[in-house]
Amino acid sequence: MQDSNPSSKPWAGRFNEPTDAFVEAFTASVDFDRRLYRYDIQGSIAHATMLARQGILTEPERDAIVAGLEAVRARIDAGTFVWSIPLEDVHMNVESALTQDIGSIGKKLHTGRSRNDQVATDVRLWLRDEIETIRAEIQRLQLALLDLAEREADTILPGFTHLQVAQPITFGHHMLAWFEMLDRDSERLADCRRRLNVMPLGAAALAGTTYPIDRHYTAQLLGFDRPAENSLDAVSDRDFAIEFTADAAILMMHLSRFSEELILWSSAQFGFVDLSDSFCTGSSIMPQKKNPDVPELVRGKSGRIFGHLMGLLTLMKAQPLAYNKDNQEDKEPLFDSVDNLKGSLKVYADMMAKVSCNRERMRAAAKQGFSTATDLADYLVRKGIPFRDAHEIVGKAVALGVREGRDLAELTLAELQQFSPEIGEDVFEVLTLEGSVAARDHIGGTAPVQVRAAIGRARERLAHG
Amino acid sequence: MQDSNPSSKPWAGRFNEPTDAFVEAFTASVDFDRRLYRYDIQGSIAHATMLARQGILTEPERDAIVAGLEAVRARIDAGTFVWSIPLEDVHMNVESALTQDIGSIGKKLHTGRSRNDQVATDVRLWLRDEIETIRAEIQRLQLALLDLAEREADTILPGFTHLQVAQPITFGHHMLAWFEMLDRDSERLADCRRRLNVMPLGAAALAGTTYPIDRHYTAQLLGFDRPAENSLDAVSDRDFAIEFTADAAILMMHLSRFSEELILWSSAQFGFVDLSDSFCTGSSIMPQKKNPDVPELVRGKSGRIFGHLMGLLTLMKAQPLAYNKDNQEDKEPLFDSVDNLKGSLKVYADMMAKVSCNRERMRAAAKQGFSTATDLADYLVRKGIPFRDAHEIVGKAVALGVREGRDLAELTLAELQQFSPEIGEDVFEVLTLEGSVAARDHIGGTAPVQVRAAIGRARERLAHG
Amino acid sequence: MQDSNPSSKPWAGRFNEPTDAFVEAFTASVDFDRRLYRYDIQGSIAHATMLARQGILTEPERDAIVAGLEAVRARIDAGTFVWSIPLEDVHMNVESALTQDIGSIGKKLHTGRSRNDQVATDVRLWLRDEIETIRAEIQRLQLALLDLAEREADTILPGFTHLQVAQPITFGHHMLAWFEMLDRDSERLADCRRRLNVMPLGAAALAGTTYPIDRHYTAQLLGFDRPAENSLDAVSDRDFAIEFTADAAILMMHLSRFSEELILWSSAQFGFVDLSDSFCTGSSIMPQKKNPDVPELVRGKSGRIFGHLMGLLTLMKAQPLAYNKDNQEDKEPLFDSVDNLKGSLKVYADMMAKVSCNRERMRAAAKQGFSTATDLADYLVRKGIPFRDAHEIVGKAVALGVREGRDLAELTLAELQQFSPEIGEDVFEVLTLEGSVAARDHIGGTAPVQVRAAIGRARERLAHG
Amino acid sequence: MQDSNPSSKPWAGRFNEPTDAFVEAFTASVDFDRRLYRYDIQGSIAHATMLARQGILTEPERDAIVAGLEAVRARIDAGTFVWSIPLEDVHMNVESALTQDIGSIGKKLHTGRSRNDQVATDVRLWLRDEIETIRAEIQRLQLALLDLAEREADTILPGFTHLQVAQPITFGHHMLAWFEMLDRDSERLADCRRRLNVMPLGAAALAGTTYPIDRHYTAQLLGFDRPAENSLDAVSDRDFAIEFTADAAILMMHLSRFSEELILWSSAQFGFVDLSDSFCTGSSIMPQKKNPDVPELVRGKSGRIFGHLMGLLTLMKAQPLAYNKDNQEDKEPLFDSVDNLKGSLKVYADMMAKVSCNRERMRAAAKQGFSTATDLADYLVRKGIPFRDAHEIVGKAVALGVREGRDLAELTLAELQQFSPEIGEDVFEVLTLEGSVAARDHIGGTAPVQVRAAIGRARERLAHG
Repeated sequence: MQDSNPSSKPWAGRFNEPTDAFVEAFTASVDFDRRLYRYDIQGSIAHATMLARQGILTEPERDAIVAGLEAVRARIDAGTFVWSIPLEDVHMNVESALTQDIGSIGKKLHTGRSRNDQVATDVRLWLRDEIETIRAEIQRLQLALLDLAEREADTILPGFTHLQVAQPITFGHHMLAWFEMLDRDSERLADCRRRLNVMPLGAAALAGTTYPIDRHYTAQLLGFDRPAENSLDAVSDRDFAIEFTADAAILMMHLSRFSEELILWSSAQFGFVDLSDSFCTGSSIMPQKKNPDVPELVRGKSGRIFGHLMGLLTLMKAQPLAYNKDNQEDKEPLFDSVDNLKGSLKVYADMMAKVSCNRERMRAAAKQGFSTATDLADYLVRKGIPFRDAHEIVGKAVALGVREGRDLAELTLAELQQFSPEIGEDVFEVLTLEGSVAARDHIGGTAPVQVRAAIGRARERLAHG
Repeated sequence: MQDSNPSSKPWAGRFNEPTDAFVEAFTASVDFDRRLYRYDIQGSIAHATMLARQGILTEPERDAIVAGLEAVRARIDAGTFVWSIPLEDVHMNVESALTQDIGSIGKKLHTGRSRNDQVATDVRLWLRDEIETIRAEIQRLQLALLDLAEREADTILPGFTHLQVAQPITFGHHMLAWFEMLDRDSERLADCRRRLNVMPLGAAALAGTTYPIDRHYTAQLLGFDRPAENSLDAVSDRDFAIEFTADAAILMMHLSRFSEELILWSSAQFGFVDLSDSFCTGSSIMPQKKNPDVPELVRGKSGRIFGHLMGLLTLMKAQPLAYNKDNQEDKEPLFDSVDNLKGSLKVYADMMAKVSCNRERMRAAAKQGFSTATDLADYLVRKGIPFRDAHEIVGKAVALGVREGRDLAELTLAELQQFSPEIGEDVFEVLTLEGSVAARDHIGGTAPVQVRAAIGRARERLAHG
Repeated sequence: MQDSNPSSKPWAGRFNEPTDAFVEAFTASVDFDRRLYRYDIQGSIAHATMLARQGILTEPERDAIVAGLEAVRARIDAGTFVWSIPLEDVHMNVESALTQDIGSIGKKLHTGRSRNDQVATDVRLWLRDEIETIRAEIQRLQLALLDLAEREADTILPGFTHLQVAQPITFGHHMLAWFEMLDRDSERLADCRRRLNVMPLGAAALAGTTYPIDRHYTAQLLGFDRPAENSLDAVSDRDFAIEFTADAAILMMHLSRFSEELILWSSAQFGFVDLSDSFCTGSSIMPQKKNPDVPELVRGKSGRIFGHLMGLLTLMKAQPLAYNKDNQEDKEPLFDSVDNLKGSLKVYADMMAKVSCNRERMRAAAKQGFSTATDLADYLVRKGIPFRDAHEIVGKAVALGVREGRDLAELTLAELQQFSPEIGEDVFEVLTLEGSVAARDHIGGTAPVQVRAAIGRARERLAHG
Repeated sequence: MQDSNPSSKPWAGRFNEPTDAFVEAFTASVDFDRRLYRYDIQGSIAHATMLARQGILTEPERDAIVAGLEAVRARIDAGTFVWSIPLEDVHMNVESALTQDIGSIGKKLHTGRSRNDQVATDVRLWLRDEIETIRAEIQRLQLALLDLAEREADTILPGFTHLQVAQPITFGHHMLAWFEMLDRDSERLADCRRRLNVMPLGAAALAGTTYPIDRHYTAQLLGFDRPAENSLDAVSDRDFAIEFTADAAILMMHLSRFSEELILWSSAQFGFVDLSDSFCTGSSIMPQKKNPDVPELVRGKSGRIFGHLMGLLTLMKAQPLAYNKDNQEDKEPLFDSVDNLKGSLKVYADMMAKVSCNRERMRAAAKQGFSTATDLADYLVRKGIPFRDAHEIVGKAVALGVREGRDLAELTLAELQQFSPEIGEDVFEVLTLEGSVAARDHIGGTAPVQVRAAIGRARERLAHG
């Protein structure tokens, strides 16, 4: 193939033998890095604009390059661009097309830069945009949760610890727990975006360039906060990819927990919620099945993202400065993390908008499992008994209930008084579900009035976030 | 789209709403599991053959199904098959094409099985073949190492510990270290293959089937050692994928270490070896560069495989039995691990066949760094000094050498005798590189005669392995 | 401190400055590697025995060393040995005590070996023993499962896929799924043991030794299958630690899945099993709680072991040969993996012996969720309807049942015949739970008769394994 | 043992059987969580103070509790406190001692809280402090790097990409690359601290409490920015532990890269730097060795931290809300991460203060490898040749140099002019090392003047950070 003739490579001058054909395919990145083409061209246009302003290119040269790059972009947008493996990567594919189109002026574009700073710039520009999209998807899911929380602010279900019934809580309160996790996720991504928004261009191969470039100007053109402070660091730094993937891993961990609950709640044994048919699939053998595929798949996808995080950390472990070819392996895990994160958030936002609650099943479950035992202990404390002693008393009442198969509210006053003479008629009020949740009436508590206040604060934060 | 009408799904009977379009794409696996088609069809043919032998299908039904499946396979082989996302996966794509071709007889193929046992079978059949291919690539690399070891059995280079010069060793000996690692890798993969060669088919959805199937017969047709002992385990077990990926991770760890050495050895500072131009690439900015891209990329790829291992372990963590949709996420990391492992082994086998050694650079390096200091200590022990005291004496001689910038062999006898009167004229013999390596003359030692013996044993093992 | 005087180090000859005090503590390993002392002494005794047989030590020297080492071991066993941080590690602590006890003959022990091959040998000896212990614990748990399976061979519970009721299965059958997983775990550990049982001793620092040692004899004394083939590999290989930890990770993944089920089954919503009080704890605030702490903690411990695996792989990534100080970090994750694996297995074996089954709850749950829908489809197939059509018919019957809140067995014949005229009176037999499980009567199926046969085969395997 | 009598547990009321002895030890956390005692007592004092202010405790009760807690703290500080395994954890050990000391008033302390919110609070208080310490250590290391960079601002060494000589850089410039990485690390930790500084107390078991608590007041007493917004989230959230460990993993990745370079640079082949004897150790067998143990060990420790990150992510994967016993496993990896991170930073700050540079070795290395080839290309561009063509021309000149064994500066003008007639006498200036580095004179570039400016800005940032 003509293209694999060594002299067609941008670096072939000193080589005597052509690249092995399998090696060419094995080391090429164009199959996946072509996704960066818009950012590559955006960066090149800014670079050319700066070069012209500094007198390194003439204005006509700049104009030819910019127009040429825009034409290449249009061809790629339109799907008519032919990508070449021997040209290795998106950068050389674009530059080679440019030179083919506009002639040898195109060869001047690479003045004062290297692929090392170019690729680092492209990936940052791309990830900056993706973070915006992801944060918007998070917010869409958060809004769906607030709407659901509002609808179900008074709905009572059992809260669990150790998957054992613990205390009655409200469904709205539970949804707000997920809201909080997503809020931290969004904040972490904003921190990551801030930290990555620093421009590598100008670092060239590793040491900077001998041309009189103006890095502040290029940074401004590309919306970067500032040029990177150190050229060696600029070309070898992949922290932003790891930090993003760590943020993604935590977010997916949250969705895996959310999924676990939706799967449990959709089971015949819990029956707390119904997912819409449009988010479930069936079985090829069992005709009755309606499977919660979406939460299961999202739960499974947490593994993929954790793996990518580990892969990226391993990739960078003990690499000497500055750029090494290993770093080409940073892209696929990052791309796949972005894609799966966006997909998982989108499908969750759509799904949560259509969840329906089985209020009766939840209420019935909250009545089981002695969920108001803590309320009885608190009642005894208000009668003057130290908490630890009250706890012991209620524990014994519960043991009786377990033996008899009756809940605390179903024991008689006489039976309860066996354990403590302080117990009076008024105890039955504190043993109701409504009494229990309403009593947890402080910031962060499960009382419906607190849930509504929290929803208000949350809407406020989203509006100003 | 007509295909997304609920009634077109193999499980749509009980559903009222069609699948959400994004969900359909998000949950479909056909984009990646189509790679399994040959194994899916192989499994279906064996299943149909067994069903006919048991009287569950008639012989004409079997013949129609087998011929139909073979026709589908031919279409896929030829690239003319049209894959459908709404049909979800490779299994339904194949079966649906079959039914379209041969009519409602095709609907009988799924008797007595489920997609759960079907996919578990397909993946095992596929991986069994891939392990064979991988083991062959390992052996090709091992042979390249043996050839190189033979050529360089007498070549002396410094052995390092802590990347400090330790003792002279032979290049052949060093290559055999990599041979041993690869040998364990191959053995581990053979163990994995043995363990995975158990047939899930017949487990159906999770509990077995009510049809009078003969699982031993199907197992025999497919070359499995036996049917899986427990149907719940059979459909939920992904151990083989994890075990394979763990084996792959260890192998890639070995190649990452090998790569590290080749990269070091190719540096201007070491200069021990030259990689062929055809395995290196250059720089778009620095005209003089010849970069060891292949070892760098392979070193980087270790991260990807470690990540996949972690992803698969996370995937399976705390999944209740039996099949859950999460498990669909097992394929992409497994496929990618296989592809990258095969590619890395292939490129290594090709590259190692063309490595050239700079014997003079290695010899010169072995002369630096007091590499025969241990030999001097051993010499003193032979004169009756306890090893720990000999070590102390030599340490002091080395300290003199460091101060003076001379190696031990360059100190005078008088200087050496300062540290121990036991030192005589014969000491200079033990301080030569050749003397040092030849003296390590026991199994596993670096003496050329031992290296040649080890090569002989290694060839023997490969021939009989 | 006198001990940190450079001359007290076994390697201080060439050093001018003493080790920094913090560095001394930071780099010392004796706090954790002292656990290896018995194996260190066992290895030293074998080494001394071989040295004497080869004439490198005299017989009286050997006797003094062996007796001295035994005395040191007795002191450590008795808890009266004083460990020293400045002496760095278990090896130097033992050797230094020996020399203090028996004088300068002790200094001859280190002839022909290095700490590099010594520590590699110690860890292998230790792990070989631990694998035996772990495999015995696995077997104890397997026996508990077989006993439980036998007791509950006829007990029916719903089998789940996607945590939706799928088909009725037997509890004994379910327990056997866990048995199979553990069987593979034990087999994997046996393979690991076989692979690690190769002796590094004689590799010395990295290149072998100049003394006329007999490695086959030492290997025989220590129960190794053979000496390691290559000295560079022998001192740098940590594959066995990674392979063991990978096996441990898979095992812990199994226990995490088992735990997930026990936690679900212990919930008020499932209520399938009761864990003994002695394996549960309560809450400091909620008096009614009985939490399944043991399965929860074991589920959590899977993370720790996965992490250790990742840590060890990262540790070895891209390390050049031969020994580097990094490798000191291999011990803590390995030790912690062994401890937690043994503890988890032990507590599981004890706990499973005391699990009690709520047969009525399980049976009632199996009646929900249309668990015999597949049986109806199979019934229709026997009447001549292709499986895919039968599936569609049953799907529609289920949809009616869902709307009406009745199970299939609760629909009338007339109602069922709406969907297919082939349905007759005999259909109600196939819709019973007992009929459903009994019909899955082939190897691996859930029928009680198959479960009992499988238990028999399993006992057989354990007896001969 | 009397203590394991069920009635001694804080939750024993409803239990019939005592905890299994092995289970007691297996599930206890006091062995490691005792490290939190100061924070546990600090939290309890704030809690009691708030309870008294709200009238839930009387002032004398508060005073007794506060004095009692301080007495317990003093006993633990003094090492005279006896920890009890049957009391499970630090919280119950402290509270039990309090009650033993001050009588049943002590039992009132646990009013309106649970161990679930208590432990979440303790860990946050502890980690907040540790982050301060770690950031101070980072700054100490950063200052050591700035001092070194200043001393060696003009020192020239070869910059590498792909471990091949790329371009001359200054040592000061290289040190600043590490400074930048540490700066991001410190910033990430500050973000983590901000996010964790939210108070769980008041969440009680999971739903809040029925007592009229004032969470804002407690938060203020403990220096938290605000109470956690949602009680379910507050008790189940471990994001802060994961985020911290991810930050630690990135930091350790940086140190592993730094270590790799120090190890390379300390080798005989590079010989760029000397580590102080006090940070190195020797070999028990090879008397000449001086091993860079500290960087090696730190490089190895990256694996441990990566593993802990993976362990924590796995731990939280798919856990349903709210607290589960799994979460007890969060502490050991977090503690170990903190300890190793602090140790690694401390030893690095000490070590870097004592590194000495071999300027001659570095300069000599920079002269090899055609490090000024890019300068020649840039020279040609200034003569009007497009960069891509200039690159090709220089590549050919390098190929000649490789064949002849001479650097570019050692070719004659006539030889150079073969490749381009544009080359004039002035070329030899741009081929000098000093000319090359001085020419990279823009922000982020390697020119000494830029390095000094960057050091100035860096000192500024540290002073105001």
